[in-house]
Amino acid sequence: MTNRPIGIFDSGIGGLTVAKAVNELLTGESIIYLGDTARVPYGTRSRDTIIKYSLNNLALLEKENIKLLVIACNTATAFALTEVSKATSIPVIGVVEGGVRVALSILSKSTDETAVGVIGTAATIRSGCYETAIHRKNSSVTVFSKACPIFVSLVEEGWIDNEITKLCVARYLEEMRGKVSSLLLGCTHYPLLKKVIGDYMGSGVKLIDSASETARLVGERLAGENLENKNNDKKFLRLLLTDSPERSEKMIKRVWGGNLVFDQIEQVDLK
Amino acid sequence: MTNRPIGIFDSGIGGLTVAKAVNELLTGESIIYLGDTARVPYGTRSRDTIIKYSLNNLALLEKENIKLLVIACNTATAFALTEVSKATSIPVIGVVEGGVRVALSILSKSTDETAVGVIGTAATIRSGCYETAIHRKNSSVTVFSKACPIFVSLVEEGWIDNEITKLCVARYLEEMRGKVSSLLLGCTHYPLLKKVIGDYMGSGVKLIDSASETARLVGERLAGENLENKNNDKKFLRLLLTDSPERSEKMIKRVWGGNLVFDQIEQVDLK
Repeated sequence: MTNRPIGIFDSGIGGLTVAKAVNELLTGESIIYLGDTARVPYGTRSRDTIIKYSLNNLALLEKENIKLLVIACNTATAFALTEVSKATSIPVIGVVEGGVRVALSILSKSTDETAVGVIGTAATIRSGCYETAIHRKNSSVTVFSKACPIFVSLVEEGWIDNEITKLCVARYLEEMRGKVSSLLLGCTHYPLLKKVIGDYMGSGVKLIDSASETARLVGERLAGENLENKNNDKKFLRLLLTDSPERSEKMIKRVWGGNLVFDQIEQVDLK
Repeated sequence: MTNRPIGIFDSGIGGLTVAKAVNELLTGESIIYLGDTARVPYGTRSRDTIIKYSLNNLALLEKENIKLLVIACNTATAFALTEVSKATSIPVIGVVEGGVRVALSILSKSTDETAVGVIGTAATIRSGCYETAIHRKNSSVTVFSKACPIFVSLVEEGWIDNEITKLCVARYLEEMRGKVSSLLLGCTHYPLLKKVIGDYMGSGVKLIDSASETARLVGERLAGENLENKNNDKKFLRLLLTDSPERSEKMIKRVWGGNLVFDQIEQVDLK
């Protein structure tokens, strides 16, 4: 049945940037977004715990009869994409592939630049998932990667553009400034820091977030599997959170931007 | 049986400062410390989730036959002390009481100062637990309180004394500087920032952390209930974590300081 919803999960609220891109590109599709706000962040946890939490999220969304799953969290994609894919018969798409595709397409148009920067949580960078995905397609690319654990806290505190944020950006990105032509924002929170990061890296450096490219991948996959729903008069958008919704309202508005289209926000229990 | 261990839990590693103080003051007592590192931090979560997690921690420690429980987490003390106490027959001690006792004893020696500062996580400050505890004993005290959510991330990143940490301290404490004679560090991570906080607030401001006073409260309570164990030839110290121990090793050493006395670190599953 093509009118089944697309399931999207993230450790928290950041993945709503992906949900928004999917909603805007695939206007006929229903979406159920699950944010594991009772256990966020995943970026500081071990591989086994990230896999366990990701499988919990899959189980809950499968009960909602989703037709495709998007893991809208870089850390969960890095550690659990394989395990989640094995555990289900529906298609599963992560957020690493989309970002890497954009980065490589930029490189292919460039004549003299072959270096890409990658930033993410401690776990994502530790996983080496971006280096692996880039080098699988082009082994001659130099990848500079750096964990920026404070960035998530800055975004959640609402310190998007102050002096402290500028100093943190400078401290983390100092080593790669001037050496890369594009920078992959490997965490769904980071696009909110685009202005400060862009100012520091310079206008010649292209900042890549995976939201819109991931939405395109979702569209391609649905088309390939004959699962598209272009004319949906029963379209719905549901937002499920594992912790109390009022704790997240400010962040939801900050990440989604513009008018919220969710009819209601529901609290769910994973256990 | 007085040779049963004291149970201590925290959302993560920070509460080890309390475990260390208990270990040093009550040298005969065995200790089991549980750090819920798979779900840390609690300071950003809702009341209901904090209570649920705290009851999970109690259940696990009760299986270990503890004789007294210390909630070595300000957030969990603020929201779950009452519920945890109701759910068990053993004595339960939080970390708010000890800090408040020190703050009030300092005030009572002062002639012209009646203002206390309190800093903590978003949840702890939102709970108003320190104001309530202080005003219950002395309603004429002025309390300045401020949530400092970035501090935990700074400590975990190891940025204990750099320019960014100094700017964060200044931004959060600006409003209370010059107005308080003591400052309660209402989060077990914050004592690691004592130097920067002390430099900013000035040498006249006494910084209070609750670890040693909480250890004294534990000793008093054990004595009162005839549960002391002063001559324990089977003393043991166990450290249980809900996420993989190697993820926390650096923080454990940073928080405990000196030589680690735990024979082994075990991973446990709360579910």
